[in-house]
Amino acid sequence: MTAMRVLILGGDGYLGWPTSMHFARLGHEVHAIDDYLRRRAHEEAGTDSLTPIGPSLPARAAAFREVTGLEIGTTEGDLTDWGVVERLFREFTPEAIVHYGEMPSAPYSMIDREHAVFTQTNNVVNTLNVLYAIAELAPDAHLVKLGTMGEYGTPNIDIEEGFIEITHKGRTDTLPFPKLPGSMYHLSKVHDSHNIHFACRIWGLRATDLNQGVVYGIETEETRLDERLLTRFDYDEVFGTALNRFCLQAVIDHPLTPYGKGGQTRGYLNIVDTLRCVELAVANPPGAGEFRVFNQFTEHFSVVELAELVQKAGTEAGLDVRVEHLENPRVEMEEHYYNPAHTKLLDLGLEPHLLSETLIGSMFEVIERYKDRVVLDHILPVTRWRGVRDPSAP
Amino acid sequence: MTAMRVLILGGDGYLGWPTSMHFARLGHEVHAIDDYLRRRAHEEAGTDSLTPIGPSLPARAAAFREVTGLEIGTTEGDLTDWGVVERLFREFTPEAIVHYGEMPSAPYSMIDREHAVFTQTNNVVNTLNVLYAIAELAPDAHLVKLGTMGEYGTPNIDIEEGFIEITHKGRTDTLPFPKLPGSMYHLSKVHDSHNIHFACRIWGLRATDLNQGVVYGIETEETRLDERLLTRFDYDEVFGTALNRFCLQAVIDHPLTPYGKGGQTRGYLNIVDTLRCVELAVANPPGAGEFRVFNQFTEHFSVVELAELVQKAGTEAGLDVRVEHLENPRVEMEEHYYNPAHTKLLDLGLEPHLLSETLIGSMFEVIERYKDRVVLDHILPVTRWRGVRDPSAP
Repeated sequence: MTAMRVLILGGDGYLGWPTSMHFARLGHEVHAIDDYLRRRAHEEAGTDSLTPIGPSLPARAAAFREVTGLEIGTTEGDLTDWGVVERLFREFTPEAIVHYGEMPSAPYSMIDREHAVFTQTNNVVNTLNVLYAIAELAPDAHLVKLGTMGEYGTPNIDIEEGFIEITHKGRTDTLPFPKLPGSMYHLSKVHDSHNIHFACRIWGLRATDLNQGVVYGIETEETRLDERLLTRFDYDEVFGTALNRFCLQAVIDHPLTPYGKGGQTRGYLNIVDTLRCVELAVANPPGAGEFRVFNQFTEHFSVVELAELVQKAGTEAGLDVRVEHLENPRVEMEEHYYNPAHTKLLDLGLEPHLLSETLIGSMFEVIERYKDRVVLDHILPVTRWRGVRDPSAP
Repeated sequence: MTAMRVLILGGDGYLGWPTSMHFARLGHEVHAIDDYLRRRAHEEAGTDSLTPIGPSLPARAAAFREVTGLEIGTTEGDLTDWGVVERLFREFTPEAIVHYGEMPSAPYSMIDREHAVFTQTNNVVNTLNVLYAIAELAPDAHLVKLGTMGEYGTPNIDIEEGFIEITHKGRTDTLPFPKLPGSMYHLSKVHDSHNIHFACRIWGLRATDLNQGVVYGIETEETRLDERLLTRFDYDEVFGTALNRFCLQAVIDHPLTPYGKGGQTRGYLNIVDTLRCVELAVANPPGAGEFRVFNQFTEHFSVVELAELVQKAGTEAGLDVRVEHLENPRVEMEEHYYNPAHTKLLDLGLEPHLLSETLIGSMFEVIERYKDRVVLDHILPVTRWRGVRDPSAP
């Protein structure tokens, strides 16, 4: 595709940093912004990324320049601050905005009232600021927003990509797919989706909402170039996600810990497919006024199936992997129907890297390299969805 | 019904104040809180209520006590301040919470980015604070939340009350009705609905979301008792609503000003029916964990139909009423299908006070009494939905 000015919001994150490098290597002019929200949350909790990452976004960009000769512009700043957003848009005039710039953790949002309020205001205000900046300063730019499959919850019907045709009492309309989000964080993404859809309708903005599944993996083509280009890898109860955490547990001889029965089924994708999906979305912008939704995952697994896969790959690798179900700290269905559509990105050319024992084995190797950095006492869940009140309690 | 402790959030407002008096006269123990957000917005804009209202919530409560011998407890405070909310819940321990405590204007939310951000953060944080306060301090209390019919927008199918049964690819589920809100304000109410639904699901709270139509009327049984008990009456472009504004325009010899073609159809109800609906909701709480939605309006009209009704009543009253269509400042369909269900409140016993020329005539009389207070230059719309960018512009 033609070289474009691509702005990466949340460019210091697990996905934001590899995406920044990926777009730079594709030949785009890239600018990344981050306010280190996740680094600060880790510091406060006494946790850290398993992988050692560069000390700052500019430092990472400097290492990337050294290794590849390519530039990534950087800004250390908070997207809830309109002055920051306005300056960024005036100076960089983006043609595409890839928006990872939000508080990304469900457990974090469920710690208590303050964390819930912070999550929702941070994410909603970030995104409102970005929408107004696009409308006022870059009206033809394409917003590629990272949403989550968790916005849909687990309805008893097939999940479509953003919209569903409903025939009701003899009339038909295509309407936003109903949402049943499962945490204060997932709710914030639902709020964003409604706000973005509205901005497309009234201002004619163009946006793609990527309802992403759970991402796994540590390495991308770019992170492999140099240790200083590694992306973060979270395994703690707040920022870690199922498969990544299971792989780590297998390596450090910790039992894998499915929550509850483990029948919870979710969409998953490899981190390299995330980069490709975002690339495909940017390369194929929607028309003015169009709010487009892609379900971004490549296969779905139940938690128990994931645990079995990791166990099997562990055996291959000579590890003794046990599984120990924990009481579920979340409120979610542990057995349910799940069949979400995910054809739109395939239609654009996505060729999925499916989960295999080989991939899991290579994750073991990377984790092995850094396992001395593990903070053991932050692996098990402490944040409970019913922290406030258990309705099933007497 | 048995006397209850009823907390009224936004108790100084157009509906909040009459609701406070109504519940006190029904024999309930009432506490009202307000931070005068609307009074301040009027002061900033140089506008005011047509009707002269008491200088403060405590002053109004004092007048009410003088007239009726009944108490209304009052707090002047901001619901986004957790300290205020926590103290209120600890001290008053409400059994029902009637939540009008939000920024209530679509045009206000569309003035610019700052007003949009303020509207969404104010309303979302208010409601999150209330949800946490209920969960932690009054878990059996019933939240009666004022939403709006504007959350639904104008889909091409019948609008149901909050939920819709969808059969899709051979499977069926009952899911939240899809929302197409038409302003940053309406979006904030959609965000609230999702947050409240979630709180019911995970904490077992009980809540009723009243998706209210446009309210008209000036007087209730209680406001008629004494001039000091009047409620506010807004007609300005920001806080005024269609029928109230038309009645005022008729009295002051100003043309009625439908926006655009005037085919926009909405649900309407008399202010006395609002009080009765809220009373019915409070008297019939849902079960623990239930999120219940009522569509709260009694009849629907297009804007042109309203203008014709006011014109006809004006002729009866000896007024010469003209109609002058304005360019629509909003982005909305001006001709559309509209058939929302509204049977649940009727089933609970609502006996609607339908709009009649008599009612409009009595509104003329009250307006006539205060017409010297009209601020003329704030009647016409200045806030434009496409203020930022008109996608149909070249």
